[in-house]
Amino acid sequence: MSDWHSSINIATLLTLEDVQKPELLADPDHETPLLKLAADTHAKGYDALCVPLTTERWRTRWREMCLIATGEDRDTATVAAERRAEEWREKPAFLLDEVTLTRLDEAANVIAVVSDWLELDSEDDWLRHDFEIALQQELAYATYLNIGTAILPPPRNRAHAASYGRAIGAALAANPALHLSLRLPIYDPAVFQAQAGKPPASPAPVSVPGSPSPATFSPSRASVSSVGSSVARAPEGDLNGNWEMWDVIRSVCDYHPHLSLTLDLTPPLPSGAGILDRWAAEPLRHVFLPSSAFIANAKGYPVLPKGTQSFIRDIIKASTSRSLFRPAIVLGGVAGAGAHARGGEGAYLQYVRHLEKTSPAIVAQNTPGTVEHYAYGYQDYLQSPLQPLMDNLQSLTYQTFEKDPVKYRNYEEAVFKALVDWPAAEHVTICVAGAGRGPLVARCLTAADRARRKVVLYAVEKNPNAYVTLQHRNATEWEERVKLFYGDMRAVELPAQVDILVSELLGSFGDNELSPECLDGAQRFLQPNGISIPASYTSWLAPLSSSKLHNEARRGNDVKAVETTYVVMFKAVKILSGAGPGAGKRCGGAIQECWEFEHPRRDVPLDARGLPLTNSHNVRSKTLNFHIPHAGVLHGFAGYFEAVLYGDIGLSIHPERMDAVSKDMLSWFPLFIPIKDPLYLPSNSELQVSIWRLTNKRQVWYEWYAESFMPVSYTTASVEKDASPALPRMPLPRFPSIDSRGSLLTSSQSTPVVAASPLVDAVDVFPFDRRAGSPSPRFVTREELGAEDGARGEGVVKIGQTALHNPGGRSCWIGLM
Amino acid sequence: MSDWHSSINIATLLTLEDVQKPELLADPDHETPLLKLAADTHAKGYDALCVPLTTERWRTRWREMCLIATGEDRDTATVAAERRAEEWREKPAFLLDEVTLTRLDEAANVIAVVSDWLELDSEDDWLRHDFEIALQQELAYATYLNIGTAILPPPRNRAHAASYGRAIGAALAANPALHLSLRLPIYDPAVFQAQAGKPPASPAPVSVPGSPSPATFSPSRASVSSVGSSVARAPEGDLNGNWEMWDVIRSVCDYHPHLSLTLDLTPPLPSGAGILDRWAAEPLRHVFLPSSAFIANAKGYPVLPKGTQSFIRDIIKASTSRSLFRPAIVLGGVAGAGAHARGGEGAYLQYVRHLEKTSPAIVAQNTPGTVEHYAYGYQDYLQSPLQPLMDNLQSLTYQTFEKDPVKYRNYEEAVFKALVDWPAAEHVTICVAGAGRGPLVARCLTAADRARRKVVLYAVEKNPNAYVTLQHRNATEWEERVKLFYGDMRAVELPAQVDILVSELLGSFGDNELSPECLDGAQRFLQPNGISIPASYTSWLAPLSSSKLHNEARRGNDVKAVETTYVVMFKAVKILSGAGPGAGKRCGGAIQECWEFEHPRRDVPLDARGLPLTNSHNVRSKTLNFHIPHAGVLHGFAGYFEAVLYGDIGLSIHPERMDAVSKDMLSWFPLFIPIKDPLYLPSNSELQVSIWRLTNKRQVWYEWYAESFMPVSYTTASVEKDASPALPRMPLPRFPSIDSRGSLLTSSQSTPVVAASPLVDAVDVFPFDRRAGSPSPRFVTREELGAEDGARGEGVVKIGQTALHNPGGRSCWIGLM
Repeated sequence: MSDWHSSINIATLLTLEDVQKPELLADPDHETPLLKLAADTHAKGYDALCVPLTTERWRTRWREMCLIATGEDRDTATVAAERRAEEWREKPAFLLDEVTLTRLDEAANVIAVVSDWLELDSEDDWLRHDFEIALQQELAYATYLNIGTAILPPPRNRAHAASYGRAIGAALAANPALHLSLRLPIYDPAVFQAQAGKPPASPAPVSVPGSPSPATFSPSRASVSSVGSSVARAPEGDLNGNWEMWDVIRSVCDYHPHLSLTLDLTPPLPSGAGILDRWAAEPLRHVFLPSSAFIANAKGYPVLPKGTQSFIRDIIKASTSRSLFRPAIVLGGVAGAGAHARGGEGAYLQYVRHLEKTSPAIVAQNTPGTVEHYAYGYQDYLQSPLQPLMDNLQSLTYQTFEKDPVKYRNYEEAVFKALVDWPAAEHVTICVAGAGRGPLVARCLTAADRARRKVVLYAVEKNPNAYVTLQHRNATEWEERVKLFYGDMRAVELPAQVDILVSELLGSFGDNELSPECLDGAQRFLQPNGISIPASYTSWLAPLSSSKLHNEARRGNDVKAVETTYVVMFKAVKILSGAGPGAGKRCGGAIQECWEFEHPRRDVPLDARGLPLTNSHNVRSKTLNFHIPHAGVLHGFAGYFEAVLYGDIGLSIHPERMDAVSKDMLSWFPLFIPIKDPLYLPSNSELQVSIWRLTNKRQVWYEWYAESFMPVSYTTASVEKDASPALPRMPLPRFPSIDSRGSLLTSSQSTPVVAASPLVDAVDVFPFDRRAGSPSPRFVTREELGAEDGARGEGVVKIGQTALHNPGGRSCWIGLM
Repeated sequence: MSDWHSSINIATLLTLEDVQKPELLADPDHETPLLKLAADTHAKGYDALCVPLTTERWRTRWREMCLIATGEDRDTATVAAERRAEEWREKPAFLLDEVTLTRLDEAANVIAVVSDWLELDSEDDWLRHDFEIALQQELAYATYLNIGTAILPPPRNRAHAASYGRAIGAALAANPALHLSLRLPIYDPAVFQAQAGKPPASPAPVSVPGSPSPATFSPSRASVSSVGSSVARAPEGDLNGNWEMWDVIRSVCDYHPHLSLTLDLTPPLPSGAGILDRWAAEPLRHVFLPSSAFIANAKGYPVLPKGTQSFIRDIIKASTSRSLFRPAIVLGGVAGAGAHARGGEGAYLQYVRHLEKTSPAIVAQNTPGTVEHYAYGYQDYLQSPLQPLMDNLQSLTYQTFEKDPVKYRNYEEAVFKALVDWPAAEHVTICVAGAGRGPLVARCLTAADRARRKVVLYAVEKNPNAYVTLQHRNATEWEERVKLFYGDMRAVELPAQVDILVSELLGSFGDNELSPECLDGAQRFLQPNGISIPASYTSWLAPLSSSKLHNEARRGNDVKAVETTYVVMFKAVKILSGAGPGAGKRCGGAIQECWEFEHPRRDVPLDARGLPLTNSHNVRSKTLNFHIPHAGVLHGFAGYFEAVLYGDIGLSIHPERMDAVSKDMLSWFPLFIPIKDPLYLPSNSELQVSIWRLTNKRQVWYEWYAESFMPVSYTTASVEKDASPALPRMPLPRFPSIDSRGSLLTSSQSTPVVAASPLVDAVDVFPFDRRAGSPSPRFVTREELGAEDGARGEGVVKIGQTALHNPGGRSCWIGLM
């Protein structure tokens, strides 16, 4: 809620040459060259330095030890190298000239860049092993120097992404204070090369200076895009390649909170945002901007192309949350920039700060009255939904919500319209059910004045403390025009039935603060033709991905925490669903309606007091199908509501409709419904979500579950075609009428059954049998489609599922009745 | 280990007519008709009765209450029915004539059959709700009567399988003493009908006697085979349909141990076993055999067709384990059997008992000396692997293993062959490393006698207790011909190096009892040209499904228990993998090799004592790709080993090779490597498994991880074709040489990078952009394949993953060094 003061961090990437410049040695004001460099960098306006941790000497020694011949042609030198390697493996340590930093003060404000030649996903098992020891050695040294963050070399080999992840996971466990940030190009540019008709870029051969037998060093790296070795991946897989590797690695590391991304913008950004969106839901710690990412503007100063600008601004937006991850910008190669001569190094920093200052999100955030300003500090922060039925709210909570500039305006308008529409009568009776500190009471009075209708106004409130405020306002403000009733709306008795019943009991998901149950209790106040405001409300759902929310919800390792709903101002979140209908033609839109409640509800049997006999009529369930255009990981669902207050006056937090219905309304953040174990969803898949609103005599709760599907084309060999001529065609069995033979399946509602013909059984042939023309389901291939004339069709195949969440309300009731 | 005495249980399915026969009422010897019926049934040789729990009256009342009109056309009768329904929902209860059983003694030996008209997966939300209340009411009544098991109506609607499962889960929670068994036809016969060119079987319309407005009862049940509503499923999905519903339901119930299957063999069995195999890995509690499943033999007596016979025999085999689930056979409709007049009802029982008695598995099990006999009682029983290095074994354990008729024979043969091959010399020196109670010592002496070679024999043993037995045998049996050394083979010193080193340190997965590490310690005993027996061993892996093993491993809710390996005699297990290579052409066989260890190993640098400096050379890792022909749920992996002792003499527990290498060997059951959260694998998918053998200075452990993929065909719009003519074709960027511009990706080992051309950025076009000819990946459809001429190809798409198991050895070390 405070203004945004701290500005984005900017770091500079130093090269080994930068660190080892001879002129640094001669400076009298600083004890070591690194201290001089740090002072210079700080003076230029940077907040931090990225420094390579090791020198070329380390790489040379490692190669001499570890890149050696095995097998038959071992000579004395090889054997000696092997022994040195074993001694190193036993007790890994650096020599002085193998590292760039040696002192604690040198390491202050330093982000360590781990040796980028560590191929933790090398094809070669033994090299991987030795690379991992080297990694552990470097990170242990960084920890020794109290360095906070180390940047890891990018993964390069999809086939061994799991090995990369396992090594990182071990490193995180061994260095509990260290943050590891995985450097990753925003996509794999090699893909693009291959696509444009060129042969796929083959990796540059690895030169192994000083190695006695380079032939045994076999970094036969598969292209990033190939899983395994012999099969090309589908293009979508290629586009997703880097993200998919990241996903494997962070999954293998079990979403470790100290693992983040250094997103490398060296590959030029595509303008289509679809593929890029997903990065917003990932833990970005740094964004690397090389000078090559800049272009020159008309005056020759460095600026970023439009796509990169908007991407950076999105990143900055994300960084304004109280996120664990406030990405810093790392500038690279700007010191001796050639292409953008104007302005020098300072121009790059200035430009990034300018981008930040003029970002619409930042501007809005610093402007009081905007949603951004109001919501600042709540972004991605998990709050438990209010349970006003169970708890009595604090005055401060009421005050916060009463500030909403839109919600009460719309309520007043709804009451006004209802009063205008109401038939002529001496007076109209209104009841505010759940009056709180009285905002709706005040609006009803204003609406009555505006509509020039005489009203009798009742106000019911069960919070004894708020009831004092109501009495106070009635005496001082409302001239005792309001009849106050203290008690639960399900128990209080009013002197007469009313014409209009006004309530504000809605939660982020509509019914999730038990509005239906409360209004069931208050409906007896309403005369048969009376009006309820709200008249109805709908709940909406969308699948989302957010490693941040996932990690927040499961903090503490309690299953309850991932089977509970939260109120969250979403920021580092990606909605996974796209517009339907998907290949399977059965998907709805990106955000789909779950269920609706209407008031008043007239068809429910009531007891003598006018209360429903059971809560059965408030049970709901829904199964929704979502189309998932781009691969992602499901971490849960976003829940929204939309309410009709009266006529065309409503309230909405549905992202696509809120601006039309109730723009700038602040009172509700969306609901976050987490799942325990993330579910991987491929590109172009379909997600089927089941959600239930359940009730027993005392509680109301939700349960939820999801399955994933993929659309497929298939061919079926025709029945006749493959039939073995030696076998007689069996008469097709009929159904049903096999009751007399004892089937369990005798009910008229059972699945129809094929009666067994003894003849069929005796020769033991059944059309399922391949010989008699079996269905031959598989995913179609090009060749086969040309070659076969069997039945063809399309369908979906199930590919995954989640657990049922919150079974029996074990973790979370949305309310107690 | 004991003989198998108890025979299979056989129950009879009674109908309502059976229960309500008027003649039962008149019997003077029994207090109630049901008691008479029970006595009669017992007299016929049955072990139990399946009795429908409710009568038609209950169905009628339920319909009158719950199948009523909603909406505008409500009349007084409707309102009254609604009120009755609400009163029922509030306090569900039976009237006396609505149930078949009323007394505890009547319910003894009774399996309750729940009303089969309860459609817990109805399309209609409100009916589902009322069906669930009725289910809870029936099960609560069964619990009241102390009934142990209730059979549930079959699920019929794939689209609401999750709702069915949720209701069952709630019922299991509410009735903790009750076992629920889900009745399920072995496949959905409607599929077959549709396939044979007939229109899909439409369900019989539901008649609603007495309902005032049947139109509002909308059991518009989708075919079992359709997910959602508008899309046809691929045939494979149809074949899998019933199993897939079962999988959803038991997953939603979180593999509740009281949830089992009553497999209904009413649909004729196909002869191909592929689809049927999977049922063996599921918790079968009953198998239902209607009289219609029988055919008449030449003499007119009822017999089962061959396919059913072998299926039943497999079931019987599974039932011999000390499984939770010993399926009983439920015979239906055999009382008044028409088709198989000869023999009457008794003939059916006799035949089933005959099948059991003549089952090869049962015969083998009752024959001492067979593996089946030896293994009885160990089937599907999880044992922790031995850790002989850490623990000293008991004499009884030694004795058990020494009984193996094959293992020591093969060892003797290997030593014999090695001695025969050994160059002429005065004598040959042999060391038995880890002599235990001396079985290998004895075999070495016999082999030497057979080979007529003079041997000097050393025996090293670290177990002080076994060392006493060795001394005893040396004195009494071996005439002090053996030189005994007491101590760990990694520490003991021998007087001279030996020619042959014999050891038996292998585990079920080869190296998992630390044979490599132990032999590293003993190798210094061996002279440079010496022979190690075993010479090498390989580890093998296959993915498996077994709800039973999954449930056993996670008992106690401890993550450690599902990240530990177990030794298990597999029974209710399905190996999911088929022969490769799969559609993606990259899969190996059903069981694939992980890694190998060879002895002696000569290329490892040693310290002064002859021991390796580190254990790095015993690190292993492997990534394997398996083809999954039929949909299943991955619960873990089966691990096997095969060893070469010497020359062509070996030991193997590889299922496809054990009979050729070491038939009837008893000493090793396979290894079970569980995973925590089951992974769903669709038909025709691919499973990529990564497994690591890791080590630090003190421990050795495995870690494992898996990803699932699906093969796809795809088309790519060609680059030129869709290019917008308004946009200039960009010169393709080159790489690398962007170091000077500051890329992080400067290493020669980095991914090649496309250098950004400022021009490209400035006009903001990049070939990823759709306009400029983007790849357009999707799953191919028939129409498109005909219509497009873009590049086509095949590949795989990732569809799921597991967590990394046992990271850092947190849950399980296979050994301490």
